[in-house]
Amino acid sequence: MKNKIIDLSEIESMDRIYRINLINSVTGFKSANLIGTQNEYGLSNLAIFSSVIHLGSNPPLLGFISRPAVIPRHTYSNIKHSGYYTINHVHTDIVERSHKTSAKFYDTISEFDECNFTPEFSDKISAPYVQEANIKLGMKFIDEYEIKENGTILIIGKIEEIILNEAVLKDDGFVDLQEAGTVTISGLDSYHSTDKIHRFGYARPFAEILKKW
Amino acid sequence: MKNKIIDLSEIESMDRIYRINLINSVTGFKSANLIGTQNEYGLSNLAIFSSVIHLGSNPPLLGFISRPAVIPRHTYSNIKHSGYYTINHVHTDIVERSHKTSAKFYDTISEFDECNFTPEFSDKISAPYVQEANIKLGMKFIDEYEIKENGTILIIGKIEEIILNEAVLKDDGFVDLQEAGTVTISGLDSYHSTDKIHRFGYARPFAEILKKW
Repeated sequence: MKNKIIDLSEIESMDRIYRINLINSVTGFKSANLIGTQNEYGLSNLAIFSSVIHLGSNPPLLGFISRPAVIPRHTYSNIKHSGYYTINHVHTDIVERSHKTSAKFYDTISEFDECNFTPEFSDKISAPYVQEANIKLGMKFIDEYEIKENGTILIIGKIEEIILNEAVLKDDGFVDLQEAGTVTISGLDSYHSTDKIHRFGYARPFAEILKKW
Repeated sequence: MKNKIIDLSEIESMDRIYRINLINSVTGFKSANLIGTQNEYGLSNLAIFSSVIHLGSNPPLLGFISRPAVIPRHTYSNIKHSGYYTINHVHTDIVERSHKTSAKFYDTISEFDECNFTPEFSDKISAPYVQEANIKLGMKFIDEYEIKENGTILIIGKIEEIILNEAVLKDDGFVDLQEAGTVTISGLDSYHSTDKIHRFGYARPFAEILKKW
């Protein structure tokens, strides 16, 4: 198989859709999460995001990227208004409905209704969880950083609550996402289940090196 | 199966390793990339990262998270010095060697040697690629944002060059990561291959709704 080299000038002159597909693919596999929010009138919103990332465990901080606020972004404006949101893992049985939330809906329509999800509330979080999800996080908005190079916004939140199936939580705190059916996204619209290759544990070559002395 | 609810106060009082395993799991599946750099003396460095994310396609910008610079971070200091780095997808055949780069090595040791990878150079990028990778990105450092809540740093780079196998690049720009053998990470140390469920294409309910009128 032959290697192909694509340089920046080629990327810049590509057809827009071709470039979007390419650049969205090359970071590798991404998380697949539904973010639930509600607006000041209590209308719920649900949208799929592939940019949720871990920022730190103590305090438990996560980030995700919101695209430029030049057109209305309900997720962003609801979070700014209510201060809360939920992150709900997409699993194999809800892939199609989850992807449908990426479409543009009228302002007065809730994606929960339109995409056949059930909103669920806890006392702590002013945002709807997805009842159908197996792993759910209740998030409190903490801060935002505007990425000045392209106007995207890194939203930072703290985990206030984790709701998950007892069976997928292992003795050392590891959550078996594969057992929970959590899927992963490549590019904009390709969904994948997973096959575990190996769980390694902590790598310790310093010790290995010292043993040889 | 029964749901378990874990709240913030429980998270805060957990054993450190348990918490790290838990909070690193709950974002969903993550990208698996080796980041290659070199220092001012030409010594190469290679380290695995699970935080590479897409920020935008035009210009083609990616981000990744570097942990606090309170202890020496070779990847970060090399990028700040040279202005360049490479991102190389981990695939199924190099999972074990790739994970080994996460260990602590002495300053004078290159992970390329220690973990059995071959450095490869192009004219454009002052950083080593991983010859064994199937999908490689040559990156130019653009900016950094310190996340003041926990001292982590969001490093932003622009794609200057993409090197990939012709066969995995599809007609619409989509890169078939599964065909390339790219793996995904859950938690800190669990590696997974993937099975494609479906590629959906762009969701368009506005049109669907109008058709009903």
